[in-house]
Amino acid sequence: MQPSPACAELSAAARAAKQAFHTLASASSRQKNDFLSCLAERIARNRGSILAANAEDLAAARNKGTGEALLDRLSLDQKRLNAICESLRQIAELPDPVGEMDGFVTRPNGLQIGKMRVPLGVVGMIYEARPNVTVDAAALCLKSGNACILRGGSEALHSNTALAAHVRAALRDCGLPDSAVHFVASPDRDVVGAMLAAEGLIDVIIPRGGKSLVARVAAEAKVPVIKHLDGICHVYLDEFADAEKAVAIAFNAKTSRYGTCNTMETLLVHAARAAELLPPLAQRYRDKGVELRGCPNTRAVLPDIAPAAEADWETEYLAPILSVKVVDSFDEAVAHINRYGSRHTDSIVTENYTLARRFLREVDSASVMVNASTRFADGFEYGLGAEIGISTDKIHVRGPVGLHGLTTQKWVVLGDGQVRV
Amino acid sequence: MQPSPACAELSAAARAAKQAFHTLASASSRQKNDFLSCLAERIARNRGSILAANAEDLAAARNKGTGEALLDRLSLDQKRLNAICESLRQIAELPDPVGEMDGFVTRPNGLQIGKMRVPLGVVGMIYEARPNVTVDAAALCLKSGNACILRGGSEALHSNTALAAHVRAALRDCGLPDSAVHFVASPDRDVVGAMLAAEGLIDVIIPRGGKSLVARVAAEAKVPVIKHLDGICHVYLDEFADAEKAVAIAFNAKTSRYGTCNTMETLLVHAARAAELLPPLAQRYRDKGVELRGCPNTRAVLPDIAPAAEADWETEYLAPILSVKVVDSFDEAVAHINRYGSRHTDSIVTENYTLARRFLREVDSASVMVNASTRFADGFEYGLGAEIGISTDKIHVRGPVGLHGLTTQKWVVLGDGQVRV
Repeated sequence: MQPSPACAELSAAARAAKQAFHTLASASSRQKNDFLSCLAERIARNRGSILAANAEDLAAARNKGTGEALLDRLSLDQKRLNAICESLRQIAELPDPVGEMDGFVTRPNGLQIGKMRVPLGVVGMIYEARPNVTVDAAALCLKSGNACILRGGSEALHSNTALAAHVRAALRDCGLPDSAVHFVASPDRDVVGAMLAAEGLIDVIIPRGGKSLVARVAAEAKVPVIKHLDGICHVYLDEFADAEKAVAIAFNAKTSRYGTCNTMETLLVHAARAAELLPPLAQRYRDKGVELRGCPNTRAVLPDIAPAAEADWETEYLAPILSVKVVDSFDEAVAHINRYGSRHTDSIVTENYTLARRFLREVDSASVMVNASTRFADGFEYGLGAEIGISTDKIHVRGPVGLHGLTTQKWVVLGDGQVRV
Repeated sequence: MQPSPACAELSAAARAAKQAFHTLASASSRQKNDFLSCLAERIARNRGSILAANAEDLAAARNKGTGEALLDRLSLDQKRLNAICESLRQIAELPDPVGEMDGFVTRPNGLQIGKMRVPLGVVGMIYEARPNVTVDAAALCLKSGNACILRGGSEALHSNTALAAHVRAALRDCGLPDSAVHFVASPDRDVVGAMLAAEGLIDVIIPRGGKSLVARVAAEAKVPVIKHLDGICHVYLDEFADAEKAVAIAFNAKTSRYGTCNTMETLLVHAARAAELLPPLAQRYRDKGVELRGCPNTRAVLPDIAPAAEADWETEYLAPILSVKVVDSFDEAVAHINRYGSRHTDSIVTENYTLARRFLREVDSASVMVNASTRFADGFEYGLGAEIGISTDKIHVRGPVGLHGLTTQKWVVLGDGQVRV
């Protein structure tokens, strides 16, 4: 079958990106940082034309009757452009992960063997409406020595095309190959399929967007994927919880934002503390408009709330709804989390040293916390300086993914003529 | 469609293995090491019955007219059993990677954030004739806190069944759940398909065997795969090579063994040194019975050898054949390796400091070497103490995979009541 013109173009772009990746291997940190500063200046200088392009996208989206939430994700303004530029400057200031060497040992035969941190190669980003991802992804990939192929949502096409043109111009300005960042302008959906099948040309795919996009990418991809699926996060108020911390953390983890993946969706409470902790918490949730759904033992304490069904324990509400379960033991809490959670982020509130240590070890999640709100699980809060996504996979990288997650390590062997006997 | 009984059994075993993995999370290093010692003792004590089982496999294979190479891989003897037991004792002595914590920083809000090394979960091994893989894989997975599902080749069924029974008995003897190691006894090929599709139950698949097995696994797997495809390794004799090291390394990298993945398949020689280095090397290869195939410039120096076709540069011979190419520059050598190599292991022979550093950085391979034979690329030579395979992937782990490659890192967040504002 003849590939579509868009797919043929993608294939050529991926080949050029691979070549650019090899060229980037000899680029200095300074050159890469110059590119980031130069891009920030370009965007600041060209706000007018970028916002005009964005206005075209917004107008088209409004004409199609697009909902407010998507329009908000799609829209750029002076403040958001400033944030994009500020983020570029911050990425420029981060240490360059490429070339870090560690773990060197000297073997009995005199070989020195260790590891060097290196880029992955060509990163494929598949994302939806947010135009800032175009700049963020290009910046993080470039800083970590990777080339990238960016495929954004068709609703942001004008905005992305304008931003991508500045990315490529900034690359040229700094003596770097502009094929290091390829933006897919075609709305042809076959291009996504071609990206997912581009083994040997694209080294990793990072989907960013709603669950259906991510699930489609994961199901179809032949190329390895770093992905984020659900965020079914738990807070467990242990038998030995400090009451004040327990209420503050359980309230914050649910209510500071509803739509984020690190929001708590199920609250677990030790039976010995349910009668004490649940009523004041229920009062605060009620005042905030959060609907509670409880297990029978929860409803024994809070008779007014709805019962939780089995499906509630495995639901990411992304809404002002919270399921609540009373557990008889620490072990039951951990078993519930490992069974129903999404291995994203889970927190215990306790003053008990041994149980805190056990929770950290036994809960199999990307982020495990003691006496802290699950809402802290993101790259900026963790001090990564930037985040290309959050991984709920176990392979390669877990949790917030910064520059290190875009790199891998190769072995370095330094000899003076050794041969194997 | 009704799953076959073998697939239903696999699914139940994978569920039990996941449960066992959670139990292993609270096992101590001592318990895991006791299991390894106990297994070594059991195997030593039961040599007779293990060798009898192996004799059944060998007899059946001979009846089927199996070739000598496969018979050799299949066969066990006292020496090989001793090696298996010795390997178990060595794995017991390796440091436990699980629970290692590093990278802790204190954030402005007082949160302490770092990483803890943890097992991947349930590892699926799919392998061919070698029965020692059954013990090796179980030992490495257990030591690194993983449960595993082992699917060996049907030709080794009796041997593997005998060894797996000892693995499970040793687990029980040491108070560990025997469901942590499941050996698939059914020859039903659908079980392999079920393993590859067991998302959420099996966390990673490691195929070990011939290229067709690995390629099938990679093509079909929905579960992430750590795999080894080709070993097209290069030695580049640079303009500034020491002649003695050049000849010794190029000879050793090709001839110390022909069938191994870290054997050199293509020799690159700088044009300025071809007339000096190729004739003595060709003499040694000829004495050893190695067939040379050369580019036109190689044949200008060595007129008696066959011409190399384009296909030669991308062939893993695994045989006493070597392709030879004269290059005009360091850049041409690196470009050739990055284009035709399999990103496994490549070595430069040079006394030039700057070119050595550039080679390490610019060659995109799992192992990059200076003045050393490619044959050193394996877990034992690198000091890992053991090796579950060699990865030619870039994601997660590159090159020889030891205990660390069977683990990942989760984030640990230690607070004292922090909530996100």
